[in-house]
Amino acid sequence: MADFKWMRELHRKNNSKMVLLVMDGLGGLPVKPGGPTELEAANTPNMDRLATEGVLGQTVPIRPGFTPGSGPAHLSLFGYDPLEFEVGRGVLEASGVGIHVHAGDVAARGNFCTVDSDGNISDRRAGRISSEEALPIIEKLQEISIPGVSLETKLVREYRFAVVMRGEGLESDIEDTDPQKTGVPTLPATASSPGSQRAADLYSSWMKLAREKLKNEPKANAMTLRGFSTDPALPQFPDIYGLRAACIAVYPMYRGVSHLVGMKIEDFQGEYPADEFAAAARLWNDYDFFFIHIKKTDSTGEDGNFDGKVSIIESVDKALPDLLALNPDVLAITGDHSTPARMKAHSFHPVPSLIWAPETVRPDDQTRFGERACTHGGLSTFPATDLMPLMLAHANRLAKYGA
Amino acid sequence: MADFKWMRELHRKNNSKMVLLVMDGLGGLPVKPGGPTELEAANTPNMDRLATEGVLGQTVPIRPGFTPGSGPAHLSLFGYDPLEFEVGRGVLEASGVGIHVHAGDVAARGNFCTVDSDGNISDRRAGRISSEEALPIIEKLQEISIPGVSLETKLVREYRFAVVMRGEGLESDIEDTDPQKTGVPTLPATASSPGSQRAADLYSSWMKLAREKLKNEPKANAMTLRGFSTDPALPQFPDIYGLRAACIAVYPMYRGVSHLVGMKIEDFQGEYPADEFAAAARLWNDYDFFFIHIKKTDSTGEDGNFDGKVSIIESVDKALPDLLALNPDVLAITGDHSTPARMKAHSFHPVPSLIWAPETVRPDDQTRFGERACTHGGLSTFPATDLMPLMLAHANRLAKYGA
Repeated sequence: MADFKWMRELHRKNNSKMVLLVMDGLGGLPVKPGGPTELEAANTPNMDRLATEGVLGQTVPIRPGFTPGSGPAHLSLFGYDPLEFEVGRGVLEASGVGIHVHAGDVAARGNFCTVDSDGNISDRRAGRISSEEALPIIEKLQEISIPGVSLETKLVREYRFAVVMRGEGLESDIEDTDPQKTGVPTLPATASSPGSQRAADLYSSWMKLAREKLKNEPKANAMTLRGFSTDPALPQFPDIYGLRAACIAVYPMYRGVSHLVGMKIEDFQGEYPADEFAAAARLWNDYDFFFIHIKKTDSTGEDGNFDGKVSIIESVDKALPDLLALNPDVLAITGDHSTPARMKAHSFHPVPSLIWAPETVRPDDQTRFGERACTHGGLSTFPATDLMPLMLAHANRLAKYGA
Repeated sequence: MADFKWMRELHRKNNSKMVLLVMDGLGGLPVKPGGPTELEAANTPNMDRLATEGVLGQTVPIRPGFTPGSGPAHLSLFGYDPLEFEVGRGVLEASGVGIHVHAGDVAARGNFCTVDSDGNISDRRAGRISSEEALPIIEKLQEISIPGVSLETKLVREYRFAVVMRGEGLESDIEDTDPQKTGVPTLPATASSPGSQRAADLYSSWMKLAREKLKNEPKANAMTLRGFSTDPALPQFPDIYGLRAACIAVYPMYRGVSHLVGMKIEDFQGEYPADEFAAAARLWNDYDFFFIHIKKTDSTGEDGNFDGKVSIIESVDKALPDLLALNPDVLAITGDHSTPARMKAHSFHPVPSLIWAPETVRPDDQTRFGERACTHGGLSTFPATDLMPLMLAHANRLAKYGA
């Protein structure tokens, strides 16, 4: 909170344009001793030029050694210490699909699953059904009504959905209902504090009604709920930093976390880097700050697809001239965390980061955007929560502290 | 405390083996401009290989510019901020020789000294008498009894001993009785808070009785007491990190601080690095975490013996294959602080540090273990209290934070 006090006090407005380009899970690992990471292996002439002209560093998403989830990692990039501001997965998912979660609402993330005739889970993701298959099933769930509360249910993507319950006396300390394995039934919604008993009971009723609705579905005949949570009432990004801020992201969760901090979520056609940069171009005059999110660096990392991740990075680099043609005053390129293909998972390693700002940057002596180069960069190793103050400073948007 | 909250919450257990190898006072200084430090001068092919395969950095033991004592420096390596967790020297010494200090006890460290016929100190360390000479003198002190309290007195090593007083109404805010110079008498035990008056009076009585017992000793005919302190009730290392942890150390104080954080203190034969590694080998299946302490890097540094310190470092390197043969999953090599031979004392300089972890480390581009190489390492410069979270992360022992 202390830092927001100073950001609120010191920020000033000007006509500068700032871009935070996040390649999800950017950081990587070599697959053989002495070999390159994904970013180092990628052919990135544009990013290398920005590295030469700009300054490099490594960001620590949460704390040294902590492996971040995507929600906390993005909060950190936006300047919010995620150990101070905890946001539930239910709220993140609901916000991402445009459901507004207010104080007193209880949001949950749902996964469709398959149960056998004994009621035991046989597939925790319902055969990973497609969004097209899932949509009519979601419509059935939208028919459910429970006296005393209102409900809003939306598909997130494929087998994942969000459900929000509104009414009097609801609290969200409820355990996940996913047993995290197959061959056993789903768990009941259990309150972990007395104040949440009513919401837990109502969610149990909802699940019973939902199971009845879906009993004849071949794959998605049951569901688990997790991440029960309510509005975290986050301080708002535009107020803290004095920025009109847009989120340009394909995936719901990143739109969700951006919405929670008060960015405007912009829709656009397509899903490739060039499509996202085109959206930025169209909106260029309407905002001061653009958060642009590239998902597939993370997905390929999670799949253990080193070459695939390299290709995604190269596709971003190839599209980059479109973004640079807009003449941003400050461009930061980083990831929210590392997802080394070798580990097929998020990891604790720090994240390569770059700030390019033609008018204000102090260049270091690095000429390549990569993990090893970033360990030698002029920004050193720093908490991701410092990135926003650094971007504002490079945009001449922070007043002098003291005389 | 916040970090322990997260360590307690995020740690998970697996079969990994972790080793924290501490060369006391490892950091050094060149003796001539452009020359090598002790570590840089040492021929360390094994550590250099680990540096090549692993990642380097510099640890700051307490805060930049702070010169640490050994107790606080080790607490820091174990993850305890020594400015938050203060542990008295008396407790450290007593714990190191196996005296358990409980809440309400008052422990002190004693130094034998020599006083002349006027009662003035002529030698503050009693001619550095040997442990063999000191043992019968300690036995005389063990005869002392004072009504209302019980006493436990043990030799630490050479002219140093520990004494612990137990009874009702004892508090430990008592000034050191060492005037820190010769030609003057020892100081009385003076309470610095009213609650400690009783303990101060009792310790004054004890000193009077002790002086009477030792009046005919040629060298050790008096004593000074310091570091009056009681049980710090530290959070326990095995609980915080979920680790079965062993301390393998020759010197009492390091065993003491390890005991205070809840490590198991293991006895073994010998005192050379190879002996300590042999002890680790014998105990390999019984623990998850091994703290191995090498003292003589510090002693040679304190003696101003640059070449001696180089030799000790080389002897550790030579024995290292024994440790590596155990296939640790994570090996951290560092010091608790710097003790440059040129300064003949502990110093404030950061400490060269290395993490080697074949499965999880992100290597940097450094190929030598030394101070200059460590300033370019991928771990950057970081608080020593972050070493434990980083080691756990490299052992895959920290769960993801948030979804």
